[in-house]
Amino acid sequence: MFKVPDYQVAGHQAGGGKLGPLVDDSGHFYKPLQSDERGSQELAFYTAFSTDTRIPDHIRKFFPVFHGTKLLEASDGSGLSPHLALEDIVSSRINPCILDAKIGARTWYPQAAEDYLQRCLKKDRETASLELGFRISGLQVHGNKETGVWKPDRTVIQRGSVDETKLTLRKFVSSNPSTDSDIKPDCCFASTVYGGCNGILAELLVLKSWFEDQTIYHFYSCSVMMVYDKESLQQGKKQGAQIKLVDFAHVIDGKGVIDHNFLGGLCSLIRMISEIVTDPST
Amino acid sequence: MFKVPDYQVAGHQAGGGKLGPLVDDSGHFYKPLQSDERGSQELAFYTAFSTDTRIPDHIRKFFPVFHGTKLLEASDGSGLSPHLALEDIVSSRINPCILDAKIGARTWYPQAAEDYLQRCLKKDRETASLELGFRISGLQVHGNKETGVWKPDRTVIQRGSVDETKLTLRKFVSSNPSTDSDIKPDCCFASTVYGGCNGILAELLVLKSWFEDQTIYHFYSCSVMMVYDKESLQQGKKQGAQIKLVDFAHVIDGKGVIDHNFLGGLCSLIRMISEIVTDPST
Repeated sequence: MFKVPDYQVAGHQAGGGKLGPLVDDSGHFYKPLQSDERGSQELAFYTAFSTDTRIPDHIRKFFPVFHGTKLLEASDGSGLSPHLALEDIVSSRINPCILDAKIGARTWYPQAAEDYLQRCLKKDRETASLELGFRISGLQVHGNKETGVWKPDRTVIQRGSVDETKLTLRKFVSSNPSTDSDIKPDCCFASTVYGGCNGILAELLVLKSWFEDQTIYHFYSCSVMMVYDKESLQQGKKQGAQIKLVDFAHVIDGKGVIDHNFLGGLCSLIRMISEIVTDPST
Repeated sequence: MFKVPDYQVAGHQAGGGKLGPLVDDSGHFYKPLQSDERGSQELAFYTAFSTDTRIPDHIRKFFPVFHGTKLLEASDGSGLSPHLALEDIVSSRINPCILDAKIGARTWYPQAAEDYLQRCLKKDRETASLELGFRISGLQVHGNKETGVWKPDRTVIQRGSVDETKLTLRKFVSSNPSTDSDIKPDCCFASTVYGGCNGILAELLVLKSWFEDQTIYHFYSCSVMMVYDKESLQQGKKQGAQIKLVDFAHVIDGKGVIDHNFLGGLCSLIRMISEIVTDPST
């Protein structure tokens, strides 16, 4: 009944005796609660957020629906353990294309312990985060028959330069994604996935408006996940491209200040995607 | 002919045998070129920026006009030394009120030398920068006859908490500014200085639009200076409240990415000032 999702692009992955998330047939995604404070912080966030009346509906839809916790046999064979039961964003799609972008130049919060801070700072400097305000944590793209599924190495993608990251964002909406630098991405889905009034860019701009104003939560080390599938696009289904925020183990109280770290990174991502929508042929 | 300006609120100050800026009667502000790479970087920025045709006029007006360099007797008595000749933003005003806000949660740039980076990071964590996305570097307010000029201690102001910084931004537009916590700032100039179609908030929003798009420069450790004087406001003069960007010793090439660090901090400042305009009585 429970199985390892076959579309995960970032985060801890189950399989091979490792602990990771599970899915079932009813559209739920079960994320194991990390045993340290990350687990309790993520649970506390979902619990508080799901009943927070200050969150307007047009923003709430960017967050996975929370269905409480559930004791499940952990994927690593360690026995029953608590999992967050969340909306499964991906499994209803055929051949989903997924991109996970961790937002913010800084993944640590001001009150973080010194060793955690230094570890995060090191990674933010080694990856694209510091320079770009975000880093692509992972992605998979279903290309055409020749290219198949393109799922590049995560550590390479995270360290991408400005130009490499721009290129990856182009490949994400192309039918010919490839690591081969001779193949120019055709960006043939740019106008339908990124552009348009229901496209990813429009959704990111709605999210941005909220972040310019909200002082409730600060989202450290949180990702924007972008999902689409060509089948839905081609059939003109209602379920087009969409974004969801994921990973809330490092959300802290905003204390009356906007989340300038997340907002800055989000604006940087928006700027790059705008560039692709405006000129997909470059 | 050259004298020490009597209105400086942040940065190195001349007087008492120290090196600092000078002004003359012709509306020029002379900033000594720092002898290390900061001096050459700031000169390089002014030189490049003043002829950069990519900068629209409605943005250029937020930068001091650059009149080249000039050899002057340095204020510390060390003899002739090169100074940047800049537009003097303040001296034409009677009893100017000035606030200097250093923008950005991070004052160091990715390529900075390790010891410089660590020094900046320490100060960003000790001051309000990391939490707020900006810190008030200094200010002076001409209050009423009882309060006189309020020019609080710079080191105290820089380390202000969220609430203290919000209060300082209120005092900046009050006729009764005071360190005495029993005196509630009256915010009687909030609507004319911060609000209105030519007010500081409107100018900051224009600047924000540019930062959402421009990928030319990254402005580290740069300040937004806000200036007004009650005399001009009361006489309905054209020269109302205004903002200028100052301090460009740490400007680097944007390399096709927006300045998400500056933009995030700017949005945080905008959010706080909006709050005051919306509800000056709180």
